[in-house]
Order: sequence, then C-alpha cells, then structure tokens
Amino acid sequence: MATLVLLRHGESDWNAKGLFTGWVDVSLSAKGEEEARRGGRLLTEAGVLPDVVHTSLLTRAIQTAQLALGEAGRGWLPVRRSWRLNERHYGALQGKNKAQTREEFGDEQFKLWRRSYDTPPPPIADDDEFSQAGDPRYAHLPSELQPRTECLKDVVARMLPYWYDAIVPDLAAGRTVLVAAHGNSLRALVKHLDGIGDADIAELNIPTGIPLVYELDADGKPLSSSYLDPEAATAAIAAVANQGR
Amino acid sequence: MATLVLLRHGESDWNAKGLFTGWVDVSLSAKGEEEARRGGRLLTEAGVLPDVVHTSLLTRAIQTAQLALGEAGRGWLPVRRSWRLNERHYGALQGKNKAQTREEFGDEQFKLWRRSYDTPPPPIADDDEFSQAGDPRYAHLPSELQPRTECLKDVVARMLPYWYDAIVPDLAAGRTVLVAAHGNSLRALVKHLDGIGDADIAELNIPTGIPLVYELDADGKPLSSSYLDPEAATAAIAAVANQGR
Repeated sequence: MATLVLLRHGESDWNAKGLFTGWVDVSLSAKGEEEARRGGRLLTEAGVLPDVVHTSLLTRAIQTAQLALGEAGRGWLPVRRSWRLNERHYGALQGKNKAQTREEFGDEQFKLWRRSYDTPPPPIADDDEFSQAGDPRYAHLPSELQPRTECLKDVVARMLPYWYDAIVPDLAAGRTVLVAAHGNSLRALVKHLDGIGDADIAELNIPTGIPLVYELDADGKPLSSSYLDPEAATAAIAAVANQGR
Repeated sequence: MATLVLLRHGESDWNAKGLFTGWVDVSLSAKGEEEARRGGRLLTEAGVLPDVVHTSLLTRAIQTAQLALGEAGRGWLPVRRSWRLNERHYGALQGKNKAQTREEFGDEQFKLWRRSYDTPPPPIADDDEFSQAGDPRYAHLPSELQPRTECLKDVVARMLPYWYDAIVPDLAAGRTVLVAAHGNSLRALVKHLDGIGDADIAELNIPTGIPLVYELDADGKPLSSSYLDPEAATAAIAAVANQGR
C-alpha cells in the first residue's frame, strides 16, 4: 500500500485576471502562494509526509511544491519534473480572457473547448506571443511532442507514460509521493485512477491548494481517496465550476 | 568540453550571528536571499545558462539554487540533491559562537578546527540540541555514514563519490551544471579540481553568492576558471578570512 498526494497549484496572476493560461508560464499570485503554504500546513496537520515530489515544468506548480514542502519542513525532498505533468495546452486560446471568449463564441463552443473530452481549441501559431516555440525548457523535446493545442484526451495520453514510468515506481518503492500540478493534468490522472468515463470527467473539478490523498494497493489501484479539508474542497469545487460565468 | 558553475550560498541567519552552523538547517537571511538573486543575475548577464542543478540537503543551499535560477528564468531545471554536498559537519561546535569559541580555546585551536585539513572538532552527542540524529532527511542514510563531526579531509572523502557518480555524468552529457552548496563542500571540490595540496587548501576561501565558472575538458579536468564578478570575489574572500576576528 502506498500514499499518493495530488496538489493543484493555487491562484496564478492569470487565474486572477480570468485568462486562459495553459502552457504560458505565469507565477502564483500572493493568494496562490498562501494557498500553497496552507496546503503544506494541511499535510503537516494530517501527518502526511511526502518522500518525493513530482512537478510539471511550469513555475506555478514548482512554486506550489516549494512553498507547501517548505511549510511542511520538507524542502529538501528529491524533486522530479516533467512536461508530461504540465497543464493542458490551450492552443490559440492562451492569453485570451475567459469571459470575453465565452461572449465571442457563445456558451456551447466555450463549454466544448473547456470541458469536452476530445475537442481541442484551434492550434496556436508558433509566432503567437503566447506560443512556447523556442522556450528553452522544451528544447530537448522533439517537435512532434510539443503540443500546439490539446484536449483532455491528449493530456491523458501524454501524462500516462509519466505516471507509469516515473510515479508508480516511486509508489512501488513505498514512498509517499506528492504530485504538484494543474487542473487538467490532475483531472487526467484522477480520471485514470478512479476509472471515470469520457463523458463524466467534464463534471469533475479539482480545487486549488487542498491536498487530495489516495491510498493505493500494490497494483496502484485506489483503496480510498479524500481531501484533507473536505469542507473547503466542496466550496472550492463549486467556485471552479463557475469560472467564466 | 563542459561548463561547471559553483555557487556558495549567501548569508544565513547563523552566518549573520557568527555561529558555527555545519549541518544545522538554518535559512538564508534577507541579505543571503538577495545574494542568491544577484548570483542569478550574474549568470544571466554572462550568458551562463545551467541545464541541471545539484544541491545539498540543507535549506540555505536549496533556497540559493531556487532564487538564483528563478532570477535567471530557469526555475524549471532538473534538480538533484545529496547529503554528500552538505556543509562540513562541525561536530560539538555546531550552534557555538565563533568569536567566543576563539576566545575560549585560543587562536591556535580555533584555527586548527576551522582550517586544518585533518583535525575534526569533538564529535557532537546524539542528544545535543544541534545534532542531526533523527532528522528525517537522513533517515535512509546508514548510521555509519551519518557524521558526528568532520574535518575537510572527511568532506573530500564523502563528496568525491557524488562528484564522480552524479555530477561528472551530467557534464559528460554536455550539460552546464550548477552546484549550489557550501563553503567547505565547495572547497573540497575546488581542492580536487585544481589539485590543491592538503596544506595550501587552508588559505582558500570561496566567496558567497558569486558564481565560479569552470570550463572542463572531456576528462573533467579544468581548462580555466573564473568568478563572474572578480572584483567582488576578491573583496568577499578577504571578508571570509576575517571571520571570528
């Protein structure tokens, strides 16, 4: 049996402004920093002490891991990072205002782009100011692996190899694993863990800054899962669902 | 040819108070944080862009790496950590005031403990408040590897396996490697790289927060080395030499 802790980063500068972010590398807001520290305090209070941390390559997840673990007295943990834990690439929507996009394209298209399982937004042009073409952190990633847009199905497909090849071995070694990542990379992982269907995943929201703790059997299958602050999680889930309204 | 960058952490809370620190896990002072960020700016200005970072398990080196790399836009680098890059364990002197220790034991004994190559201070008791016995970060380290005191010779002996097994492979893969560590673990590495004798190493001081850049040949031997801010380095080296005076 092993313990897996999922932690979605808190508010970023662009969350606060209501912009589609995706792979654009924005920092946490002051509120987001405090959410991360609170996440660390929740870990400490629950006695859930990670042995290793996995993050995406995006600053807001890296900051969240550092702040939460610093608060939990575990800033010295081994760190592993991968682009496969990155947020969904939002394609040509990156940098656009959510509410304006909804007005411009209508409720149906907006919901399709945000929540359909297999409809990605239009791809971003390499010369778009919010493209990641030329970003040095992806320099070693073959061009065909660098997304220009993604739907959640794409995220599941690129995230799962990292789950199997990097996270499961840590769990199998008996380590308590913290994954600090994003709304959609974590939805992809929860979809896999909980066996959620392609249609039902649209309704799943993961709150920011509240550790979600899974107990897994030897085969990596969930025995149980719970948020460390269930009441706050319920309230936050409702708030996420209302974004862009 | 590969590039190795050594960065000694800046002022910690205990440096500021003139206390022997060793393996005690104190944080950077505000001044130390600014030194780390300045180190990152020096890297950026010089166009020295690390591909991977190695740190000790001590917070002040981890913070230094995070702040310097954040400033250089490289907070997303792969991270590797090891106790083998830790500061010298100062034994029973940990937590003691440097100037008081010098007064109490005299110039000669003080210099012997601080600067002799092979005379460690008395070992620390496991129940000393500044012992690391029971620290969870060393829980997986067999007891016989956990130092109770160290001289610089001991640091060389425990640091070198990490140099050969973890850092050299990164250099051999063509990566620019940043090592964020401590006065004595970096002195141990510089002693090895520059072939400095056991007696002469006593006079070598490494300034805080100023990247020291080595160009190495394919065999890991130095072709050249220089501080990114040579003038500040010279001034800082003199200041370190005067500690405890």
